[in-house]
Formats: sequence, C-alpha cells, structure tokens
Amino acid sequence: MIDDLMQKIVALCKRRGFIYPGSEIYGGLSNSWDYGPLGVELKNNIKSLWWKRFVQQRANIVGLDAALIMNPKVWEASGHLANFTDPLIECKKCHFRFRADQMDANSCSNCGEKDSFTESKTFNLMFKTFIGPAEESSNIAYFRPETAQAIFVDFKHVLDTTRIKIPFGIAQIGKAFRNEITPGNFLFRVREFEQMEIEYFFAPPKQDSDWQEAFEIWRKEVLSWIKDDLGLDLSKVSEYEVPEDSRAHYSKKTIDFMFEFPFGIEELYGLAYRGDFDLKSHEDSSGQDLKYRDPESGKEYLPHVIEPSFGVDRSVLAVLVDAYSEKDGKVILKLNPKLAPYKLAVFPLLANKPELVKLAKKIYLDLKENLMVTWDERGNIGGRYATQDEIGTPFCVTVDFQSLEDAAVTVRFRDDGHQERVKVDELEKFLKEKLNGSRNNSKIS
Amino acid sequence: MIDDLMQKIVALCKRRGFIYPGSEIYGGLSNSWDYGPLGVELKNNIKSLWWKRFVQQRANIVGLDAALIMNPKVWEASGHLANFTDPLIECKKCHFRFRADQMDANSCSNCGEKDSFTESKTFNLMFKTFIGPAEESSNIAYFRPETAQAIFVDFKHVLDTTRIKIPFGIAQIGKAFRNEITPGNFLFRVREFEQMEIEYFFAPPKQDSDWQEAFEIWRKEVLSWIKDDLGLDLSKVSEYEVPEDSRAHYSKKTIDFMFEFPFGIEELYGLAYRGDFDLKSHEDSSGQDLKYRDPESGKEYLPHVIEPSFGVDRSVLAVLVDAYSEKDGKVILKLNPKLAPYKLAVFPLLANKPELVKLAKKIYLDLKENLMVTWDERGNIGGRYATQDEIGTPFCVTVDFQSLEDAAVTVRFRDDGHQERVKVDELEKFLKEKLNGSRNNSKIS
Repeated sequence: MIDDLMQKIVALCKRRGFIYPGSEIYGGLSNSWDYGPLGVELKNNIKSLWWKRFVQQRANIVGLDAALIMNPKVWEASGHLANFTDPLIECKKCHFRFRADQMDANSCSNCGEKDSFTESKTFNLMFKTFIGPAEESSNIAYFRPETAQAIFVDFKHVLDTTRIKIPFGIAQIGKAFRNEITPGNFLFRVREFEQMEIEYFFAPPKQDSDWQEAFEIWRKEVLSWIKDDLGLDLSKVSEYEVPEDSRAHYSKKTIDFMFEFPFGIEELYGLAYRGDFDLKSHEDSSGQDLKYRDPESGKEYLPHVIEPSFGVDRSVLAVLVDAYSEKDGKVILKLNPKLAPYKLAVFPLLANKPELVKLAKKIYLDLKENLMVTWDERGNIGGRYATQDEIGTPFCVTVDFQSLEDAAVTVRFRDDGHQERVKVDELEKFLKEKLNGSRNNSKIS
Repeated sequence: MIDDLMQKIVALCKRRGFIYPGSEIYGGLSNSWDYGPLGVELKNNIKSLWWKRFVQQRANIVGLDAALIMNPKVWEASGHLANFTDPLIECKKCHFRFRADQMDANSCSNCGEKDSFTESKTFNLMFKTFIGPAEESSNIAYFRPETAQAIFVDFKHVLDTTRIKIPFGIAQIGKAFRNEITPGNFLFRVREFEQMEIEYFFAPPKQDSDWQEAFEIWRKEVLSWIKDDLGLDLSKVSEYEVPEDSRAHYSKKTIDFMFEFPFGIEELYGLAYRGDFDLKSHEDSSGQDLKYRDPESGKEYLPHVIEPSFGVDRSVLAVLVDAYSEKDGKVILKLNPKLAPYKLAVFPLLANKPELVKLAKKIYLDLKENLMVTWDERGNIGGRYATQDEIGTPFCVTVDFQSLEDAAVTVRFRDDGHQERVKVDELEKFLKEKLNGSRNNSKIS
C-alpha cells in the first residue's frame, strides 16, 4: 500500500509530464529526474512564492545568486573537504556499494552474501572537477554541496553594498550537488538538487533567551510557509529536535521538520542555530575582516546566524504526496491553487460548434496574458474534467450555448466538483480573488 | 574610453550590489561572478519576462527543466565528446595557456616571449566529474555544456505526455558549463552561465521557403524580445549571418545577433536552423524511436528544428551597458522599468518628523506586498534620488507636509527628473500602468 502510493505518484508524474526519469532514452542515470512541462511550473511556483514571502515582502532580507563552482578554499574553511564524507563499504562478492551507517543487516541487500564486506572507507560527497585543461591537483574544484557557504563568503560584500542593518537575512535559491552513494526514493535523495536557504544574522546573544526568541520566530515562519504557501496538511508534519550528540558541534539547537512521506517520516526542512561558526571559520581562513559594525554604537562583532533551509525538490515531492487523492478510481490532485501548473482550463462545450469555440478561444487568449491557462476541446466534458483533476487544475470554465445569450460561463471547482455561473467580464477578477485567497491568509510586515 | 566604460560598469555592479567577483575573500576564482541583491532581481526579471513571453503567453510552447548531469552517451550522440574542443597552446617560457585560434601575434601576451609555443592540442570544454565513489572511466560524467540536448533527449516524453501538435516548441532556462581556456570580459565569457533556449519543431519542409518562413518568424521574435522586453537600443544590435564554412554542417542557416559591447561587437544571441540532425543523432545512438506521428494523416517523421538561444548573463551585461548613462558626473541607470530591481523607492521628506515617516512607511509596506519597493530616509532628497538613479529605480515617491493634508505624494521619474503629484489611493494603479506600459507594447497571440 505504501509503496503503491509512491509508485502511483511516480507513474502520474511521468504520465502527465510533471517529472521524467533523466536521460531515459539512454537507460537513465542513477536516480536523476527532469522536470517536464507541468513539473517546471509547479517547481517555479514554489520558488516564486518563497522568494516573494521571504525576500520581496520583507524589508530585512535580500537575495543572492552565487556561482556553483567556488574557490576550493571555501570547502577547506567550511570543513566540507575534511568532513563531508560518508562511510563506504563494498560487498566482496557482487561489488555493490553501501553506506556503512545505513546497513541494518549483515547480508548484502543486493546479492544476499553474508558478512562479506570490505572495510569501511570514508568517501567525500563533493563532485570534483578540474578548472582549465590540466587535470592537476592545483586545478581541482568542487561543485558546491550546499548553497549556504556562498552567503557567508559574500557576507561582507552584502554589508558593504546595501544599507541593511542587523538583524537581517540573505536568501538564496540554487542548485547543490552531493555524490550520494545510494540516492533513491524519487525526488527525495538525488545527486543534484535545489535549495532555498536563508542565513539570518543577528547580534551575539547576551543570554540564551536572545537566540531562542529568534529561533522561535523562524520556527513559526517555517511552519507558516508549509501551511500557507505549500498548503500541506500540518498533521503530516512534525518537528524533531536533533539531540546534542547528533547535531553539529557549533549548533546549540537544530530542528528537522519531518514530513510523512509514503516511505516513512523523513526530513523535509531544517532549522539550525549555527552561532558565529561559519563567519569565524571564513575570517580565520581568508584573513579577511568579516565583522559587522553597528552603525549606532560603532561596536564591531561577528554576527550569529540562524539558518532555515528548504529543499525545493523535497517540497515538490511533499506537495505531490499531500495533494494526491482518488475518488471513484480517478485521481484528483488537490494542489494549493497557487502552486497548480495551470490555474484554469477553458473548454467549448462542443468542439464542432464554431460560435462556442470562438467565444471560448477569446476567453482563453485574454486570460492567458496573465495566467497559466490551458485549452481542451477533445471528447466530452466529463473526460476533460478528469484530465484537469489529474494535473491539479483548480478551475474549469465551460462555454455553452447559454453563454452566447447571457455572456456567462460555468466555472467548475476541482476539489468538490461544485459549479458556479460567472459573467465573462468578471471572470478574471473572480479567479484572481479565488487564487489570492487560497490557503495563504497571512500578511507579512 | 572603451575600457573605461567596462571598468565603470564592473565597479558600479560591485559598489551597488549587482554583481560581485566570485569567492573574492579567497582571491576569487578565474572570472566567476556572484549576483548580489540587485543583480539577482535584475536577472530573475529577465528570466521571468522571457518565460512569460515564450511559454505562458503562447499556446504552443511548453517548458522543461532537466538535470545538469546527463548520461554521458548524450554527449557521444551530440558530438560534444568528440568535437566540443578548443585548440590549446602553451608558452614554453611562462606556461601561460592560450586558444590557438585566438592568437593574433607570435609573442606570448603574458610574458612577451616570441615564437615559443607548444604544439596545439585539442582540449574538451566539458567539465568532467565522477558519479559514485570510484574515479573510474565507467563512472565519468559531464556537466552539460548546453541546455539544448536535454530538450532532444526528452522530446518523446513531451510528445507522449502533452497534447501538443506540430509546430510546437520546448523551452528551457538553466545553467550550462564550459571549461573555457580564456574566460573574460566580465559576464561575457564565463565558465558557468545560464541559457534560455527554445527548440521549435516543425514538419520536414517540402521546399526551402517552408523553413525560411519559420526562421523569419523567429528572427522577428528575437528582435521583438530584445526591443520590447530587454528594452535595448536596436541601433546597437546587428545581425550576422554565419557563412556556410563557419556554421555547423547540419545547419542551413545561422544568424548571430550581435550587440555593441564596450569591448567590441560580439554575439548576444543565436538563431539556427538545425534540420533534423539532433533528433536523428539521438534516434541512431539510443535505438529509440523519436518520431512524431501526425494525428490527422498518421504519417510519422522526425521534425526539423529552429533553435533560438539566449544567454542570460549576456542579456544582463547588454542591459547594463545599454542602460548606463552619466549626467553632471552622476550615474543614471536607465533600465527598462520592468527589469529594474526596485520599481519604487519611498521617502519621508524628513526622517525626524514621525508623522511623515508614519505615512511613508504605510505606503511602503502596502506596496511591498506586490512590488519590489525600497525605503530610504537618510540625508537629503537629492542624495536619495542620486542613489536610486544609480541602481535604476524608475520612480521615487516622497511624502511631504502637504501629503498630510491632500493625501497625495510627489512621484519623481528617473530618466528626465520630472515630477507628478499622485493621490496615495491611486498610487498602486498609477505605478502598475506605468510599469505595464513600459517599452513592451506587443501582444502575443
């Protein structure tokens, strides 16, 4: 049943053009995925909403988009070169490779051989490449394993070129790469993925309650994003406070936001208080002064930081899992309308009646200027509704014979199937109100 | 004078937070660049407008967002593994490396030594890495050197999962990587860059006029994008038809759209008729049937393709170059308002008058819900205007004492400095009309 749901979602994603297996005509490439016509819209909607909420609508967070290949010294300073490793073992019989820390039996899960593993070796998860023509050690570079470090490396630039004052944040959306030994579970663990991260800087706390307060504000912000923008069912979301011996040594508190995926309760997002560890490491390693100077007191200090970290692909997966439902053997993808690839489908009741097609086409083209709208004239209305339900389109508009007389259309709602008659002139306003009201009722100041 | 303009633009970009040198606290990394708070907004505005014009507003182009690491067989089929190379020579004295085809003297431009070069060797421009823990030839993979191939590789998926009919396009925005021997000229030639590409598929032409007509439509589309969305001065844009001996063997026509950069007239965008070369190569190499089946006639064929290709970073650079102007020793960045990072700045006339600050803050926060707006209360109005002019903010709104009585504000226009009095209630509408009217007057059907 559980696997069944994942299989259904993967199949739906491929069948409807949300997500395809990467390089499939060449046999694929180890759990890589391509976002198809609907998937790219869903993913872009998530990224835009996040940017709007956390950057555009706030006075104290600014954006950044840094290069994926950074100077290798960055990864020395951050500790990734030394420590961003997994323990690797190999079955001596079939040569299948595993993460030693994820083994839960003594038999090879690939060939069944017992107690026949090589010794565990550490393996760095960064993708290595060479800059320039010579494959020499001096030319080694890495594709970034996380977006966060670029924010610390550019911290002083942002201070020097904006007028932003503590407390403030720097936000970034971008790709990161991890050479996972065992990627899997569809979009959940992939080798290239996208992150949305904020580093939120504040004055060194005088007492624990100072950072705890900031942490609590961010904990609520993350939950509010999950509820209002993603529109996830909060009963599937839980918080796991990472115990001291499992979290990074510099972090006084880390919470993983867990989601009930079909394959188990797993990490969706993270929130960590990182102290001044990152800026201090980069200050020490680079020899550059990364201190913030308080404009009023003139005091200089390394700010502390809270890091909310959001995976884009995991967001997409959670949204799909949460939205998936079936009724009478048919799929309804109950996406938050803000996230739906198409906001609206427009149909002429009958495709062979030019007067219906003409009016429907006019409505379609007018709305398409500012909204993602799709068109369908095949088969019967029931079949068209079913198609739109499967891809999560929240509203279907049908032009019928009565429309020619009363200049109104039937708007049908995806989730409960109810219908309303709306004047053509008022359609755009009607839809925009429905879309703006959908699940995001929070105001951000 | 020419270099001077580039230096001024690079300096402005750094000073105002558009673009920073990548990894700069560690001494940088060979012409890599990070987009700062203003740069990321400018770049995202370009990408959003492009997506809106070519995907959302059109019925026959759909999007894609494929993985950056593809199965290496893709690059065998496309010819990149064998042919995507530059000829490399090295100065025997100082070991500086050059592209042999770009040498225009016999002396090393680094150390001045004459006629002292190694023999030319070919060097593949793809960034190589290894998937999984073992650095074995069977695990080699490459970061894609262009976005286009993913569109061909996923072509059949798109056919099977959408109801799109020939002629249609698949559009993609994403990163690509080229291990250039001599990157340079700021954003112009970088090792990682972003592309916006469309592959536009149509039935095999029965006569030359068939593809020539489609080509001409796309030539005009590219120019229309340059003029209406980027807002570039068309007198700086020219077309260069690539002669037969310089273009790819499978291309019957290629046009480079050239822009007058400060360092010379160089390629901004490309437009190429590629026949059925790409689909045929992938069909041959993969053994998969990539044919399109005409739904009316039932005829099957490999479509031909026209490829308009837009560099994101070159777009940003061209926009900055075109917008840069000086008046009385001060910089005015005359960006198309649609592209400007901030649409609006809001000021209280005096920062020490709480009643002015209060009204200005209300206007700022209300507008910030839906527009990128910035706030300034430092110094005098003249200084604030100068700051906003430098970053290209098209409108400044000042709340003065009269505002408290007539509920109106002064709106000041960046390009000519003229001012209008606008009611606070009508401000959002006023601004949106100005923004929507700005330079893009074209309708797309």
